[in-house]
Amino acid sequence: MPTSGSQPLHKYSVILNNYRRPSDRFMAGGYAMEADTRTTIELIELAGRQGLVQGVELIAVENPGDIGVGTFNQADIKAVLADNGLALTGVMPNLWGNPWQQYGTLGAADPATRRRSIDLCKKAIDLAAACGSEYVGLWPGQDGSDYIFEADYQCMWEWWVEGVRELADYNPAIRIGLEPKPNEPRAYPVINSAAKALVMIQDVGRENVGVCLDVGHSLFSAENVAEAIAMLQGRDRRLFHLHMNDNYNTADLDMIFGSVHTIEFIEAFYWLRRTGYSHFMSVDLFAYRTEATRSVEQSVRWMKAMDAFIDRCGMQRFDALIAEADPTAATAFLREQLLGG
Amino acid sequence: MPTSGSQPLHKYSVILNNYRRPSDRFMAGGYAMEADTRTTIELIELAGRQGLVQGVELIAVENPGDIGVGTFNQADIKAVLADNGLALTGVMPNLWGNPWQQYGTLGAADPATRRRSIDLCKKAIDLAAACGSEYVGLWPGQDGSDYIFEADYQCMWEWWVEGVRELADYNPAIRIGLEPKPNEPRAYPVINSAAKALVMIQDVGRENVGVCLDVGHSLFSAENVAEAIAMLQGRDRRLFHLHMNDNYNTADLDMIFGSVHTIEFIEAFYWLRRTGYSHFMSVDLFAYRTEATRSVEQSVRWMKAMDAFIDRCGMQRFDALIAEADPTAATAFLREQLLGG
Amino acid sequence: MPTSGSQPLHKYSVILNNYRRPSDRFMAGGYAMEADTRTTIELIELAGRQGLVQGVELIAVENPGDIGVGTFNQADIKAVLADNGLALTGVMPNLWGNPWQQYGTLGAADPATRRRSIDLCKKAIDLAAACGSEYVGLWPGQDGSDYIFEADYQCMWEWWVEGVRELADYNPAIRIGLEPKPNEPRAYPVINSAAKALVMIQDVGRENVGVCLDVGHSLFSAENVAEAIAMLQGRDRRLFHLHMNDNYNTADLDMIFGSVHTIEFIEAFYWLRRTGYSHFMSVDLFAYRTEATRSVEQSVRWMKAMDAFIDRCGMQRFDALIAEADPTAATAFLREQLLGG
Amino acid sequence: MPTSGSQPLHKYSVILNNYRRPSDRFMAGGYAMEADTRTTIELIELAGRQGLVQGVELIAVENPGDIGVGTFNQADIKAVLADNGLALTGVMPNLWGNPWQQYGTLGAADPATRRRSIDLCKKAIDLAAACGSEYVGLWPGQDGSDYIFEADYQCMWEWWVEGVRELADYNPAIRIGLEPKPNEPRAYPVINSAAKALVMIQDVGRENVGVCLDVGHSLFSAENVAEAIAMLQGRDRRLFHLHMNDNYNTADLDMIFGSVHTIEFIEAFYWLRRTGYSHFMSVDLFAYRTEATRSVEQSVRWMKAMDAFIDRCGMQRFDALIAEADPTAATAFLREQLLGG
Repeated sequence: MPTSGSQPLHKYSVILNNYRRPSDRFMAGGYAMEADTRTTIELIELAGRQGLVQGVELIAVENPGDIGVGTFNQADIKAVLADNGLALTGVMPNLWGNPWQQYGTLGAADPATRRRSIDLCKKAIDLAAACGSEYVGLWPGQDGSDYIFEADYQCMWEWWVEGVRELADYNPAIRIGLEPKPNEPRAYPVINSAAKALVMIQDVGRENVGVCLDVGHSLFSAENVAEAIAMLQGRDRRLFHLHMNDNYNTADLDMIFGSVHTIEFIEAFYWLRRTGYSHFMSVDLFAYRTEATRSVEQSVRWMKAMDAFIDRCGMQRFDALIAEADPTAATAFLREQLLGG
Repeated sequence: MPTSGSQPLHKYSVILNNYRRPSDRFMAGGYAMEADTRTTIELIELAGRQGLVQGVELIAVENPGDIGVGTFNQADIKAVLADNGLALTGVMPNLWGNPWQQYGTLGAADPATRRRSIDLCKKAIDLAAACGSEYVGLWPGQDGSDYIFEADYQCMWEWWVEGVRELADYNPAIRIGLEPKPNEPRAYPVINSAAKALVMIQDVGRENVGVCLDVGHSLFSAENVAEAIAMLQGRDRRLFHLHMNDNYNTADLDMIFGSVHTIEFIEAFYWLRRTGYSHFMSVDLFAYRTEATRSVEQSVRWMKAMDAFIDRCGMQRFDALIAEADPTAATAFLREQLLGG
Repeated sequence: MPTSGSQPLHKYSVILNNYRRPSDRFMAGGYAMEADTRTTIELIELAGRQGLVQGVELIAVENPGDIGVGTFNQADIKAVLADNGLALTGVMPNLWGNPWQQYGTLGAADPATRRRSIDLCKKAIDLAAACGSEYVGLWPGQDGSDYIFEADYQCMWEWWVEGVRELADYNPAIRIGLEPKPNEPRAYPVINSAAKALVMIQDVGRENVGVCLDVGHSLFSAENVAEAIAMLQGRDRRLFHLHMNDNYNTADLDMIFGSVHTIEFIEAFYWLRRTGYSHFMSVDLFAYRTEATRSVEQSVRWMKAMDAFIDRCGMQRFDALIAEADPTAATAFLREQLLGG
Repeated sequence: MPTSGSQPLHKYSVILNNYRRPSDRFMAGGYAMEADTRTTIELIELAGRQGLVQGVELIAVENPGDIGVGTFNQADIKAVLADNGLALTGVMPNLWGNPWQQYGTLGAADPATRRRSIDLCKKAIDLAAACGSEYVGLWPGQDGSDYIFEADYQCMWEWWVEGVRELADYNPAIRIGLEPKPNEPRAYPVINSAAKALVMIQDVGRENVGVCLDVGHSLFSAENVAEAIAMLQGRDRRLFHLHMNDNYNTADLDMIFGSVHTIEFIEAFYWLRRTGYSHFMSVDLFAYRTEATRSVEQSVRWMKAMDAFIDRCGMQRFDALIAEADPTAATAFLREQLLGG
C-alpha cells in the first residue's frame, strides 16, 4: 500500500512577510527597533538573494499599499519573480487584519461584509492566476466566536460553505486551501481542525477545495500531524498546501520550524512522501525576537535536512517499522540515526 | 431558522456500571472498600428504585459474567426493565477492556481480532434489538496509536470504515453511534473529535450511523460542546446519543455532570432543544471517591435543572441573545438568572 | 480555623486602558473602527461617571504621552481622582510594550536594560506614592525564554530577585505585587505560577513583596484559583492584588469576568473572604470585539453578584460543605442556589 | 558561572515494576495476556541480567506480598542486589494504591490515616537505610482534590508539611524527595509543580528534603524541564532524584524515555550536568502495549545516548550558545549534530 517509490519533491517556499518583525497585543508597536520600509518587491529580491526557496507566498489586501505587503502591482511582481527565478506559490487574502472583518468575513452575519470578503478573495484569486500560482489560501482567523450565546454556529457554517463554493467556481483552475486553527484570534474558530476542514470540503462539494495544514496549528490541536496528513491525502489528496513552523504544543508560537520537534516532524515528512504530496512547504513564522532572515533560513534548512534524512534512511525502512508495529524497534532506529550508538 | 417551538423531551438515562466504584492505573484494585457483588439485574432494580431516569444503558461483553456487568441473559433483563418501568436506552459492546483488544478492535492489524470485535458488536446489536433499544454505541478506546511510526493511520481508518459499514448493514433498524475522544487510553485515538466522526460517517455512507457525543470528551477537545451539537444536528441529525459528565477541560475526569461547568452546558442544552434532539442523555461517570448512587443522582438532577432553566427562560430569549450577538447582553442575562441582581 | 466572620470588603477597581479597544498580532492596527484620542484624565472621568468601581489602576510609562495612557501628570491625576471620588488602586510600570524590553527588563542580560527597567519601576512607585496608592504591580511579560538553549535560567532569576529587592527597599511603604503567567508573550516566563512567585518572594526576602493573581492566568495554568488564593494568603497574606477576567482554560483571552466560569469563581470568592483578603479586585480585560465600557460594567456586576451570593449563602454554609467533604452535597447546594429546584 | 567542568556521572536506574505490564481504568485486569507471577527478587535478577543500569528502585508496601512488588524481605533484597552488582537507588512507599488512601495520606483529614501513612513511609525509610539507599521518594498521588468545595487546601498543606518534617527527622541520613505532578489521579494534587514542591520544602525547613522531578510530569505542566532543573539545583541542589519517561505534553503517558522529545531533553541533560546533578536517573514507565523489558532497555539507551551527545559536543559548546542567546545559532548547531548538513 505504501507508495514508497514516490519521488521526493523538496519544494520550499516562504511567506514574504516572514522577513518582517511582527507586533503582538503587548508590543503593539512591533518588536522591530526601526520602521521596516521595505516593499514587497524588495522582499522578493531578498528571497532571491537568500537562495534557499523556489517560491514565495503573498498576502493580498484590498488596496495595494495596505499593511503587511507594501505597494505592488501584478506586473512588477511577475517581473521580479522571474528575475529571481522564483515561483509564486500561493496568495492569501488578508481575512484577519482589517477592523471591518472583526465579526467575521465569509461567515459574518452582515451580508455586506460577506460580499466584501468574497470580493477580496476574488482579487487574491486573480492575482494568483495572473502571476502563475495555482493556489489561494483562506485562513478564517476572524470567523468564529468568543462568548457563549454569541454565535449562530449553523448560519456561520452555511455562509462559509456558500462563500467557498462561490470562490471555487469563480476560477476552477485555482486550488483553494482552507487553513484550520484550534483558536486565536477567536476562541472557537469556524474551522478548528483538519477533520472539520474535511467536513466543510464535503459540504462545498468542489474538487478544487482542499486544506492548508499549518503544522504548528496541528501540533497544538487534539490531532497528530502525521495522521492529519495521512487523512487528508487519503481522501483524494486534499492536502493542498503546508505552512511550516514550530511550538510547544500549547499555543501558536510560530517559531522556527524544527526548533522544537524532531521525531514527530520526521514522521510527518515520511507521510508527505508516502502519500505523494507534490506541493510546496511554505515557511510561516512570527520572528518576534529573532533576526527574521536567519529565522527563515533555519526553517528551510531544517526542512531540507528532514527530507535528506528520509532519503538517507529510505522510505522502505520506515514502511518496515510501521509494518512491524513495535515501538521499541522504531525508537531504537530513530535514536541510532539521530544520536548514534 | 431556530426551531424554538420544539418540545422538550427530558429523557434521562444512566450507564449501569456508574453505580459501581471504579479502579484506575494507580488504585488498580479499585476504590471500593469492599467487593461489589451486585449483578446487572440488581443494578437495574437500583435504577428503578432511584426513580430519576427513564432508561438504562448496558455494556455488552462476549461472555455474560465477564467484568463490569455480572451474569445476565436477555430474558432476565427484559423482565426486570419492564418491572421497573425502564427502557433500555442503548448497548455498548466492551471494546476496551479485554487484553486481546489492546492493539485495536475493528481497526486492529490482525484480521482475527477485527472479526472477533465485529462479532462482539453484533451480539450487542442483537441484545439491543431483543430488549427494545434502537441504539448501540461504539467507543474505539483501544484503536489508535501511542508511538511515532507505530500505526498505519490509513489502514486503521479503512478497517474501521469497513467494520462500521458491516455493522450498520447487519441490522439497519439499530442506530450506531461512534463516540469520539481526544485521547486515553490511546495517545491518538482513531476518532478523536466530533468532526472526525462525521468524516468517518460520510465514508461509511449509511443512514443509521451517527455520533455519541460524550460532553466530557468534548470539553477537553479543541471543540465547543454547543457548536459540536449544532454541527452534528445540522447534518441530518446525526447526534444519536449523549454521555453526560464533567471535568476541568484538561482530562477525562468523568465527574458528576454539572459539578464544574454551568454556562457552557446551558448553551449546549439550548442547542439540543433548538436542533430537535430527541434521544436520551445518559449519565457516564467514574465515581472514584464519591458515593456512586448519589453521584448519579446529582448528575440527573443537574440535567433536569438545566432543562427546567431553558424552559423557564424560554427558547425565544436565547434565540434573541444570539440574534443580538452582543456578549455583554448575553452575560448580563445569564448573571441575572443565575445569581440575581 | 475558617475566619468566616471576616467582613466583606467589596472593593472593585478597573485598569484604565480597559476602556480602550486593543490590537493583537493579527489585527495589528487595533479592533477599534476609529482612533481613540481620549486621555487618561478622560478615562478616569469615565470610570467616575460609570459609578461602579471605587478605584482605578494605571499603567506607567517612561515618558508621559507614550502608548496606552495619553498625556498626564501627577497633579492632574490626583485632582481628577478626587473629583470623581476614586482611589488610585495601583500602578503598573509598562514592562512589556517597548522594543528595548523585548529581551527582558529586570532580568535582561544587558545591565543597561536592567537599570532602565528599574528606573521605570521607581517612577511607577513614585507615581503611586504621590497619588495615594500603596500598590505597584510588576508583570514580567518580556522576561523569560522562547527557544531551547536561549536563556540562562539561573542568571535571569537572580537578576529578577535583585531588581525586586532594590524596588522593595526603594519605598517600603509601597507593596509590590509580582504577577505570574504561564505563557505569552514569552513561551516560558520567568514567573509562571503562583507557587513560583512565592519562591521568588522568599528569595527577595522583603515584607512588602507579594503576588498579583490574575485569575485568568491562574485558570489556564496547572493550578486551581481557589487553592492559589489559599496558598498565597496562608503565607503571611501575600496576595496583594487581583486582576479579574475570564477564559476557557486554554489561553489568556482576557474576557469579561464571569462570562465563562461560575462555580470555580464562587469558590475563589469564598477563599478571598475566608482568608481576609482586604485589597481591590481590578478588572483586566481585552475588549477586542465587545463594547469596552459595557464589558467593564459586566465584569464589575459579576464580581458584585458573586460577593452578594457569598453574603446570601453565608460563609458558614461553605465552611460546612468543606468540613463535610462530600462533593455530592456541595454540588446539590450549588445547583439549588444557582438554578433552583 | 557555568560549572562546565563537572564530571558526568551517567548513573542509571529502573523502578522494578517497570518490568511488569500495567492496568488502567479501562483495561482493569491489566494489559498482560498472562498473570505475572515473578517476584521482586526475580525482577532484580532480571535487571542484573539486562546489564544496563547500576541500580534499582523499589516500591514499599505495608505488608510484603501486597500488590506491585511480590513477597520480599530486606535480607533477600540485600543479597540479590549484591549478587547482581546493583545499588538500591531509592524506595517509594506506595501512597496511592490502597483504598484506605483514597482521600489522602499525609494530608488526609482523618488523623488515623495520616498516622498510618507516616508509619508506611517510615518502613520505606528503614528499608532504604537497611539496603544501602540514601533516598526515599514521596509521590502524593491521592492527596489533593477533585471537586469544588471538597478540600480545605490550607489544612491539607499543613498536614503534609508536618508529616514530611516528621519523616525528615526520623532519619536525617535519608534524603526525602517530593514528586510533583500537575494532575491524575487527583484533579488538583497538593504538590502540582516543581515550584510548589520548593514552597513546601521551605515550609518543612529540613536539609534532607528535596524534589524528585518526573520529567514526564514536568513536560505536561506549565513548566520547562530544563528550567525546573536549573531552579531546583540553584537552590541548594534540591533536585534529589529523577524519574524518566516521555509523553506528548498533554497527559502522563509514561512512555519510553526519548521516544517523543529530543531537543528539550538535550537541554535538560545539559542543565543536569552544569548544575552538578550527582544522583540517579530512574526509568519510570507504564509499558501498556510494548514489551516491558525492551521498553526499559530503550529508555536507558536513550539516556546514555543523550549523555554521550553532551560529552561529544562538549559543555562549553552549549555554554557558548546560551551566552550568545541567538536561537538561530542554537538551532543550526543542533540540526547539524542531529541530522547532519
